Amino acid sequence: MTGSPTNSFEEALESRAQAVETALARLLEQRPLDGEIARPARLLDAMRHGVLAGGKRLRPFLVMESAALFDADGEAVLRVAAALECVHCYSLIHDDLPSMDNDDIRRGKPTVHRAFDEATAILAGDALLTYAFDILADGATGLPAATRLDLVLGLARAAGIGGMVGGQMLDLDAVRVRPGEAGIVTLQAMKTGALIRYACEAGAVAGRANAADRERLAEFGSAVGLAFQLADDLLDVTGDAAQMGKATGKDHGAGKATLVALHGQDWARRQLRGLTHQARTLLEPFGKKASLLVEAASFIAERRR
Amino acid sequence: MTGSPTNSFEEALESRAQAVETALARLLEQRPLDGEIARPARLLDAMRHGVLAGGKRLRPFLVMESAALFDADGEAVLRVAAALECVHCYSLIHDDLPSMDNDDIRRGKPTVHRAFDEATAILAGDALLTYAFDILADGATGLPAATRLDLVLGLARAAGIGGMVGGQMLDLDAVRVRPGEAGIVTLQAMKTGALIRYACEAGAVAGRANAADRERLAEFGSAVGLAFQLADDLLDVTGDAAQMGKATGKDHGAGKATLVALHGQDWARRQLRGLTHQARTLLEPFGKKASLLVEAASFIAERRR
Repeated sequence: MTGSPTNSFEEALESRAQAVETALARLLEQRPLDGEIARPARLLDAMRHGVLAGGKRLRPFLVMESAALFDADGEAVLRVAAALECVHCYSLIHDDLPSMDNDDIRRGKPTVHRAFDEATAILAGDALLTYAFDILADGATGLPAATRLDLVLGLARAAGIGGMVGGQMLDLDAVRVRPGEAGIVTLQAMKTGALIRYACEAGAVAGRANAADRERLAEFGSAVGLAFQLADDLLDVTGDAAQMGKATGKDHGAGKATLVALHGQDWARRQLRGLTHQARTLLEPFGKKASLLVEAASFIAERRR
Repeated sequence: MTGSPTNSFEEALESRAQAVETALARLLEQRPLDGEIARPARLLDAMRHGVLAGGKRLRPFLVMESAALFDADGEAVLRVAAALECVHCYSLIHDDLPSMDNDDIRRGKPTVHRAFDEATAILAGDALLTYAFDILADGATGLPAATRLDLVLGLARAAGIGGMVGGQMLDLDAVRVRPGEAGIVTLQAMKTGALIRYACEAGAVAGRANAADRERLAEFGSAVGLAFQLADDLLDVTGDAAQMGKATGKDHGAGKATLVALHGQDWARRQLRGLTHQARTLLEPFGKKASLLVEAASFIAERRR
């Protein structure tokens, strides 16, 4: 061990990202599965464009490291991680559409509707969302039926009307509605928080953790989700587009309400330190086994892009 | 019993439609489920607009009558039917979007993106698709975990890249690619056939049918799906917009390839008779119990709107 803790964390992040990238590429091969009639090439290409685009793969990392606390099976965990990433990437494809955020660039590449067209981007998102449930439910995931079902239900609830999609609706309405602090907290807990929370919980489910540990991981995920959003809002004010690989200052420019806009940058940085501490405390029972997850929380709170 | 068989069929269709409408209205109430943070009113309104819009509810009918062959539990079947209808309605909402079919009217009412806006319509579709898996996976469905998981996987595969969404992609490409007969058959089997086939199969699954009966119902569903599409293509040539509650002649006008365009109306009517006969033959082992399903096949083949 010669690297600093931070280097070994970044190496782990990179290595998990490669593992999930390989799993996603395999899941998005041309050959149809049992019961599929055909996989239209253009749709598959658009799905790949939206998914196999690199990125930090934070949600898969959280799934994998949470699962590792409970010595979960590697292949099962990789599929759960891939399913969550499909949902995350579908949400990016739809959020980027002209009628939503109207973004041309994502991770330094043209967005799916720019590389293909709007209809194809909508369908690619639809197909990725659907496929996420397929991946979890498939026997190839190797977990007992009740566990796979648990994962399906949790993902549906984290991603649906009462979670991510609902949060995106609130976000689109925010310019008009101008939510107060409580409204912003709800919006963010739904739009970005729910899926990050679920990534950590799903790792515990895949590892067949007991109820208390599962709840502990979910709470850890909530703290990480809050930190992620605060750091994002800070970056929107302080970051630059080249580092981010996407447009910045958009929320700030649009006068969109964020907690950073309400309370200022210093408050946000204090909050982030508190959340990092809370995340670390939650994982103390797992000892050294949880060190990568604890570092992930700090990395997310302190990230510069 | 004073009505003709057809009248009693239409009464049964209407009564099942009302039952599923009630179930859908209950599923789309404002109160969040466990694990949902909140249900944003605007998103919920758009989902309701797209779902609680009447219609024949053919897919739910097929689920319910297929399940009735195996004396399945009523509440479970209603939820399975509602989940399939959520998927069907999401697909209509997305298909109607300006970048797809650009339709302003659906079932005589403004389409969701006309009544709300494009972004809200996209999100309402996303939320309905996600919710379908929630409904199936939820313990409230009352079926054993393995059965619910089976339903989830089947729906994902029928609705996803190798089924309905893939078929919509092929359909959008059809004007450019001009598929031949084999291509049209694949397109239609995916775009409309897969979900109709699955409606019948899902009824058998909910009724915990044996493998042979399940396959028989799936084949019946395939025949019904083919008949549905052929009848639709005929109506596009012969129907009028007031009867249909939507624009007609669009496919024909766009020079879109259909089997009716390839082989003519007389051929199509002969095919429809053959499919109705095939459907009836497949259900012979179930005797009188299957009479409503047999009538449904005829109704779909002969429908005028």
